[in-house]
Amino acid sequence: MKLFINDYQEGCLPEILQKLYDNNYVANSGYGTDKVCDNARGLIKKAVNREDVDVHFIAGGTLTNKIVISSFLRPFEGVICADTAHIATHETGAIESGGHKVLTVPNKDGKISADDVKRLVKEHIEGLSVEHTVKPGMVYISQSTEMGTVYTLAEIKALSYACKACGLLFYIDGARILYSLFSKDCDFTLVDIAGLCDVFYIGGTKVGALLGEALVIVNPRLKEHFRYILKQNGALMAKGFVMGAQFEGLFENGNYVRYCKRAVENADKIREVLKEKGVEFESNASDTQTFAIFTEEQYNALVTRFDFGGATKKDGKAYARICTSWATSDKDMKALLEALSNL
Amino acid sequence: MKLFINDYQEGCLPEILQKLYDNNYVANSGYGTDKVCDNARGLIKKAVNREDVDVHFIAGGTLTNKIVISSFLRPFEGVICADTAHIATHETGAIESGGHKVLTVPNKDGKISADDVKRLVKEHIEGLSVEHTVKPGMVYISQSTEMGTVYTLAEIKALSYACKACGLLFYIDGARILYSLFSKDCDFTLVDIAGLCDVFYIGGTKVGALLGEALVIVNPRLKEHFRYILKQNGALMAKGFVMGAQFEGLFENGNYVRYCKRAVENADKIREVLKEKGVEFESNASDTQTFAIFTEEQYNALVTRFDFGGATKKDGKAYARICTSWATSDKDMKALLEALSNL
Amino acid sequence: MKLFINDYQEGCLPEILQKLYDNNYVANSGYGTDKVCDNARGLIKKAVNREDVDVHFIAGGTLTNKIVISSFLRPFEGVICADTAHIATHETGAIESGGHKVLTVPNKDGKISADDVKRLVKEHIEGLSVEHTVKPGMVYISQSTEMGTVYTLAEIKALSYACKACGLLFYIDGARILYSLFSKDCDFTLVDIAGLCDVFYIGGTKVGALLGEALVIVNPRLKEHFRYILKQNGALMAKGFVMGAQFEGLFENGNYVRYCKRAVENADKIREVLKEKGVEFESNASDTQTFAIFTEEQYNALVTRFDFGGATKKDGKAYARICTSWATSDKDMKALLEALSNL
Amino acid sequence: MKLFINDYQEGCLPEILQKLYDNNYVANSGYGTDKVCDNARGLIKKAVNREDVDVHFIAGGTLTNKIVISSFLRPFEGVICADTAHIATHETGAIESGGHKVLTVPNKDGKISADDVKRLVKEHIEGLSVEHTVKPGMVYISQSTEMGTVYTLAEIKALSYACKACGLLFYIDGARILYSLFSKDCDFTLVDIAGLCDVFYIGGTKVGALLGEALVIVNPRLKEHFRYILKQNGALMAKGFVMGAQFEGLFENGNYVRYCKRAVENADKIREVLKEKGVEFESNASDTQTFAIFTEEQYNALVTRFDFGGATKKDGKAYARICTSWATSDKDMKALLEALSNL
Repeated sequence: MKLFINDYQEGCLPEILQKLYDNNYVANSGYGTDKVCDNARGLIKKAVNREDVDVHFIAGGTLTNKIVISSFLRPFEGVICADTAHIATHETGAIESGGHKVLTVPNKDGKISADDVKRLVKEHIEGLSVEHTVKPGMVYISQSTEMGTVYTLAEIKALSYACKACGLLFYIDGARILYSLFSKDCDFTLVDIAGLCDVFYIGGTKVGALLGEALVIVNPRLKEHFRYILKQNGALMAKGFVMGAQFEGLFENGNYVRYCKRAVENADKIREVLKEKGVEFESNASDTQTFAIFTEEQYNALVTRFDFGGATKKDGKAYARICTSWATSDKDMKALLEALSNL
Repeated sequence: MKLFINDYQEGCLPEILQKLYDNNYVANSGYGTDKVCDNARGLIKKAVNREDVDVHFIAGGTLTNKIVISSFLRPFEGVICADTAHIATHETGAIESGGHKVLTVPNKDGKISADDVKRLVKEHIEGLSVEHTVKPGMVYISQSTEMGTVYTLAEIKALSYACKACGLLFYIDGARILYSLFSKDCDFTLVDIAGLCDVFYIGGTKVGALLGEALVIVNPRLKEHFRYILKQNGALMAKGFVMGAQFEGLFENGNYVRYCKRAVENADKIREVLKEKGVEFESNASDTQTFAIFTEEQYNALVTRFDFGGATKKDGKAYARICTSWATSDKDMKALLEALSNL
Repeated sequence: MKLFINDYQEGCLPEILQKLYDNNYVANSGYGTDKVCDNARGLIKKAVNREDVDVHFIAGGTLTNKIVISSFLRPFEGVICADTAHIATHETGAIESGGHKVLTVPNKDGKISADDVKRLVKEHIEGLSVEHTVKPGMVYISQSTEMGTVYTLAEIKALSYACKACGLLFYIDGARILYSLFSKDCDFTLVDIAGLCDVFYIGGTKVGALLGEALVIVNPRLKEHFRYILKQNGALMAKGFVMGAQFEGLFENGNYVRYCKRAVENADKIREVLKEKGVEFESNASDTQTFAIFTEEQYNALVTRFDFGGATKKDGKAYARICTSWATSDKDMKALLEALSNL
Repeated sequence: MKLFINDYQEGCLPEILQKLYDNNYVANSGYGTDKVCDNARGLIKKAVNREDVDVHFIAGGTLTNKIVISSFLRPFEGVICADTAHIATHETGAIESGGHKVLTVPNKDGKISADDVKRLVKEHIEGLSVEHTVKPGMVYISQSTEMGTVYTLAEIKALSYACKACGLLFYIDGARILYSLFSKDCDFTLVDIAGLCDVFYIGGTKVGALLGEALVIVNPRLKEHFRYILKQNGALMAKGFVMGAQFEGLFENGNYVRYCKRAVENADKIREVLKEKGVEFESNASDTQTFAIFTEEQYNALVTRFDFGGATKKDGKAYARICTSWATSDKDMKALLEALSNL
């Protein structure tokens, strides 16, 4: 069975494993104060071309989202996001358990717009009893989105300006941002991202780290005392250097570029064949995810050999996510492309 | 500089690294539902000789403590522990941030007793306004303790019975429990532990895992829906199998026995020499930690070559913790023993 | 200006004021352990015809909702309610600040149905990753609803059975339940309510108390230690007898019956005239609230003499809530009915 | 039985009751936006001689403490207070349930000092792992204290300066501050208090209000959006004017002066007689509370006629609190003074 289920099935880039092996008996100071983490932070600062940001490593995405949102918002503030956003749908109420309401907006192709943000803020202010409703305090977007789509630079800029105009923080969840850089729709860089938001994270887990997300705090007023927050939330790991090593491995020698580019190119090939065969898509995905709408017949033929992690079936159609990753093998790709060509 | 600062400076047992290397491209299902975790769970169940416990892997100790205490207590309940307990002193209020008061008892050699527990419960019940004070709901102990001491089987049994008599949950933080098994004071087994408490964790990080603690839930009424709790707390890692591999590596082929036994034997050797030289101890530590009371002179002589991670100085004395671990080299041990002999 | 804005503008039933006056220098024990509260509890138990319920007095509705939901749900559980429910729209995220997600369902005439509940539970269970989404744990309805509509006995029974079948708690917010008893749509009694839900509250504030809501806990497993919860949430008032006196005053001598019946009859008269004049309604309200859809012309004519607390204007229409209460004067009613007749 | 148990047994000043009676049918706007509250706020601003403070009314003291501490501290900050402080001992962990650790200091006569504060902050900063321990963020004192003692102006100034020097907020719980103004130890005014702290509350409940505490926010950076916080915490009462009326009644016409002065004078008389009889005191109380140390014999003789709310007995001594209030009758006072004279 060839697996195109998700991007967190396998271990890590061989370069990262080698690094762990080479340094296994090197002694490090604890809790992320070590040289490995410092070096990884330096590589990330270079990638975003800013020395003045703070970089922290956190084990996973939900923990990162919960910490960012619960620490940076005041108690009565909520976070605006798409109704398809991970924090709204797939984190078991982690944001609410941190005390905050998630203010969802109907998504368009997995995205929200600056107009959505401005409308919500206007509705709040013009409500009859302003302090009886949750105050919008932050905008959350995923780049790339849960639908595989990628915000353009213009869209991000518009959101950034709307946030500034409305006094909102702007937070970008970059679980797959390193993939999104190689999307055909990408017209932005990590430097742009850092310049337009208050805080974002560069995901490691899904692009080939054993674990870890790199949180980049840009807004100076959010930086202070953040290590207290990490510790209180159980996110300051004794062997912080293990996470440091993941990001060293990703950012050294252009490693992530090589792996992420190939992963997106593979997804592009899949989409190309699907288009040729007249298969439609649920979204205009352009990262490693492809949301295909097969006929049930087509789907049933494929799933004897390929696993897409389950499909939603409706009206004779099967809505399936096909996911490539840094670890997808050439052999599996070849088999899938052939199978799709013969649909 | 020879480092005897702590037990989380180096990477992991080479056996664990090998396992990661061998399986790097094996595809696993996500979030701890994989075969690696299942196998690790099986090894732990075998070690505690119980099939009916639930085993979950969590990235670190503070996160584990916060989750256990905030999920298993009712909102108005507090947790009884020693005033030296990690949750009382070194977790940045993680327990309070989860909503619960930490009810500290003056420690004796790092420990609390069944009598302490019974007294606190009695004081609560006999107070003038019972519902105006926090209700004791759980007892927390560390095995071995923050002072390097080890609870005997009789002491644990007495605490267990006191908890049952008073309707309290009994939780054991085993960050160093695998070391404590090789203490000269150890007269218990993991099977005993599992039989006497409601929930405990077997620490991985400090005994040679890259990360991870294995939470063992014994009390059936605490088991239900625990994966929701993990997810909501940001503790369900996408690549759960990475933590599974750590515990496979520790429990397979008696690996942890070999490494932990040696670490405690090394600490025993240090204590032997210190005793011979008339150095006193702050506690009756018998695990990998030794709390020596040096003269300032002695200390100053040692710290040119050995790092103990800082000492508290008072009245001409230097209170230093000397810490061995799974990774302490024979060379470093030899140097330290020689230096201590020459004090 | 005649005010039909809401039902909490004036003080309290004169019978309550008299009671405060008569007993001003009587000494009471503190924190709701007094005879006044006991007597009030007895009157409420009689009204619901059950000796086995627990009754607690809490200062306001939002505090009651927050306490009930945060104390009775497990951390990962959410509460199902209408998208028009007070807890979803007008409590500044109080429920989320207590840690729980509000799972809204599109309302029909202010209500949700047993089918809505069953569908949400089914969707949760059948989701691909059950523990990654919030578990439904409770159903919340307001009786009467925020749209002035009243659930029939059949509707409440269906919801009650759905909750039992799905393992959910059923909580009824009765901020205006004493008014709803006199709605033309009412075919239930307080005895029915107590028999069909796990916990509900009988609102005092809006039916003529200075403050206070009477929480009635029916489900035995929710009763234990509730006074700890009240104290921890700042809801155990030193002079609890003041709230006891409100409910004595409401339930003695059929006082609430007299006042609430009249308030709903006044609203019925308003609706009758509006119907005669062809004015449409936003909902099938039958309690003290009437949601009229005036032409802007009609509305502008009325607001020179009557205050309805602001109206939403859209497409030449003015959506206004007209609210009667225990305190509405005959004079004001006469003036309003005349004015409406002349529209 | 004559009751000297506490100061919240009876209703309220007759002047307050009259006010409620006179205005019972006056219509007010909701949630504390009414003229009664505005007038009460004005009276309090006049009493503290500052127009620039914000005044909010909250139903009770625990709710006030919980809101102030959880809203003004960052998540990882704790509150320094005496080990006898109400928030440390008698609020069922309300502060911890709001997420914050209570950092207790051994009291001296119910008080803490500027030196205590500076020492705790120093210990935190000089700790080996600063971000692993709770950061002191606020100092809480009760004026008068739980031991009936009264901080002098010099003591408050020293605490205020220590807070400023250490970057801590300074919060004064004035549940009995209106009594403390008439203590023989009082050398301060409400104007001083407002000038020296960031936020404090003037208690209403214990000095003759039916309910309510007046929170005075002095520090401008704490003022913004506070009504959102009140609403989210269930503290914004629909009939806010009821609390406004309490403080109008207390502050108009020097009412509180008359009642509080008399209450403290009565306590002074009790202490005078006790001293004459050689009875010792547990503290140097000088407000309405007297902490007498009777022989068991003396105590047993008294409690047949007087109720002090229970005493702690130890080594043949009975530690009893004798409490006067605004409502203590001349008849009861006469009887008590006679009985004490005959000890």
